[in-house]
Amino acid sequence: MNLKQIAKDTAKTLQSYLTYQALRTVLAQLGETNPPLELWLHNFSSGKIQNGESYIEQLLREKPDLALRIMTVREHIAEEIAEFLPEMVRTGIQQANMEQRRQHLERITGIDTSNPSLQPEQQKTSDQNLDNLSN
Amino acid sequence: MNLKQIAKDTAKTLQSYLTYQALRTVLAQLGETNPPLELWLHNFSSGKIQNGESYIEQLLREKPDLALRIMTVREHIAEEIAEFLPEMVRTGIQQANMEQRRQHLERITGIDTSNPSLQPEQQKTSDQNLDNLSN
Repeated sequence: MNLKQIAKDTAKTLQSYLTYQALRTVLAQLGETNPPLELWLHNFSSGKIQNGESYIEQLLREKPDLALRIMTVREHIAEEIAEFLPEMVRTGIQQANMEQRRQHLERITGIDTSNPSLQPEQQKTSDQNLDNLSN
Repeated sequence: MNLKQIAKDTAKTLQSYLTYQALRTVLAQLGETNPPLELWLHNFSSGKIQNGESYIEQLLREKPDLALRIMTVREHIAEEIAEFLPEMVRTGIQQANMEQRRQHLERITGIDTSNPSLQPEQQKTSDQNLDNLSN
C-alpha cells in the first residue's frame, strides 16, 4: 500500500470535487441574478467538470470572469472546510464500518435461523462479536 | 453558500473515494496471492464502486471476508492520511489557481499582441496583476 500516492490522489480528487462544489455555488448565485448566464454555464459545464483543472482551463478561454469567480469560491470553500474534513472522514468511516458489520451480523443471524446450510462461510463470525455489535 | 452541507457532502465523497482506494489496495494484494479472486472482485466491483456504502453492502452479501477486508483497509487509510489532507488541498488549490491565472494571462498577452480585437473582455485585467503573475 503506497499511502503517499494515495494521499496525493485523494487530495487531487478533493480539489476536483471542491471545484464542482464551487461551480454549484456560482450556478445558484447566477440563478438569482442572471438566469441566462446560469443556463449557459450549466450547459458548458456538463460532462467537463470531472477533471477540475481541465474544466477551469476551458472555462477561462470561454468566459474568464466566470472561471476566476469559481476559482475564488473553491479557494474560499477549501479555507473554510478543510480543517474539519479529517475528523469527519475518520468518524464517518468508523461509523459506517460499525453499521455495515451490525447489519451484516443481523442478516447472518436471520439466515442462520431459517436455513444455516446456505451461508456456511459467514458462520465463522464469533458469537461474542455478534453480542457486541448487534445491539 | 451552505458551507456545512458542502463539508458533509465532501466528507461523504471522500469516504466513497477511500473505499475505492481500499478496493484498489486489496485488488493489488490479491493479484499476488489469489489472481482468480482478484479477477472475481474486479468484475464484481465494476460499476458498483461509485457509492461506497452500497458497494460494501452488496459485497458483504456476496463475499463477506472481502468486504470486511476492504472496510479494514479503508479505515486504516483514513487514519494514516486524513491529517495531511487539509494542507494538501488548500495548497493544491492555491497553487492551481495561481498557475491557471498565470497561463490565462500568458494567453491574453499572446492574443493581445497578435489580434487584440478578438478578446476585448479579457483586456480588463490590469497590467499590474500581469506583472505580478506572469514572471
